[in-house]
Amino acid sequence: MLPTITAFERSPDRGRGLARDMRVRWALEEVGQPYAVRLLSFEAMQQPAHRARHPFGQIPTYEQDGLVLFESGAIVLHIAQTHPGLLPEAPDARLRAVSWMFAALNTIEPPVFERALCVVLERETPWFAERLETLDKRVRQRLGELSLHLGQSPWLDGEFSAGDLLMLSVLLRLQGSTLLEEHPNLLDYLARGTARPAFQRAFQAQAEVFLQAQQADAQASPGPRGAA
Amino acid sequence: MLPTITAFERSPDRGRGLARDMRVRWALEEVGQPYAVRLLSFEAMQQPAHRARHPFGQIPTYEQDGLVLFESGAIVLHIAQTHPGLLPEAPDARLRAVSWMFAALNTIEPPVFERALCVVLERETPWFAERLETLDKRVRQRLGELSLHLGQSPWLDGEFSAGDLLMLSVLLRLQGSTLLEEHPNLLDYLARGTARPAFQRAFQAQAEVFLQAQQADAQASPGPRGAA
Repeated sequence: MLPTITAFERSPDRGRGLARDMRVRWALEEVGQPYAVRLLSFEAMQQPAHRARHPFGQIPTYEQDGLVLFESGAIVLHIAQTHPGLLPEAPDARLRAVSWMFAALNTIEPPVFERALCVVLERETPWFAERLETLDKRVRQRLGELSLHLGQSPWLDGEFSAGDLLMLSVLLRLQGSTLLEEHPNLLDYLARGTARPAFQRAFQAQAEVFLQAQQADAQASPGPRGAA
Repeated sequence: MLPTITAFERSPDRGRGLARDMRVRWALEEVGQPYAVRLLSFEAMQQPAHRARHPFGQIPTYEQDGLVLFESGAIVLHIAQTHPGLLPEAPDARLRAVSWMFAALNTIEPPVFERALCVVLERETPWFAERLETLDKRVRQRLGELSLHLGQSPWLDGEFSAGDLLMLSVLLRLQGSTLLEEHPNLLDYLARGTARPAFQRAFQAQAEVFLQAQQADAQASPGPRGAA
């Protein structure tokens, strides 16, 4: 059976590839594994059927032949461990790639995500400028270290791996921000990653979901003056 | 060769088991693997020798026979995959345990850690109460979902696993807070985890490091009135 993943029926990122199904789609495209997608409304995500798949009522999940996984990191690791192409062959290099997967999700993503939350949720508060400065500093420190490590290498540790895939998925959230622009090698790294055909296919697939939902909404709506 | 891990010479948590070497110590104790510890000052953590081990200048790292790993999640996963005792034998259950490892580090830890940072860094700001309320709400949502999933089970998914080890290591940061006390089953879960002999041995070992550093500081200091 094809694996089935879950994704937002209407992604809050408006199809910009920031929702976490993108990571799993990208991994599946990298290894050439076809997959099915079950789209979920925000309401459906809270229902028992989905909570049984995902205790925190989120996307993505991964189902295949009775196996049910949640957490994008765990799903990408499973795909990488069962298909060639996302982890090096040499044992030590494989383990280092896994270190980079955890670094992306536990060292880089938390401050990057916190900053994104602040920009959306605290923009109108009196403390916004001060908070943003603090968060920028935290993100800046990590990006500086990442930039120093990367240097002029194309990828984090030898060949492209699941570590790069997750790291780039996290950096995508900073695309267009001056924080990323402070490091030309990180900009190049992101450009290199998003130029991969597998990324492009995954990006188009998730963007298409949003576009179709938007068109369905437009057809169902009564028009700009409520004329229907 | 014994594996060597790195840890704080003087932990900022004052030996309360919140520093991330605790997770690795606990995993090594669970599987009965002796280990060596290299203690690092804050200054040494920023030096090239340590940056070569850990691109973000943090602890813990793990070294054995030329292999160098960083990120507590990756290290615990490596220990669990190379020793019996931290992952179930059945393939699907092993993969679910890995989902729980990522859930601990990517879904539960970020809001819990952000709340801890706020309590330390923003206590004196005019917005402290409002920010804390928002953060409490985020933590409360996740704890509610975790409590619902756990129910009256002793562990997250069957036998104790590396998923529980990381989840409990994260919950340890909420010990004594009213947020945790809202869920008696999570309190019991934490008590059950910290009562494990392997946890106790790991906790004592990391606490001992802090105690020895404190004694060394006391002997080196000129006394309360600078009388020396």
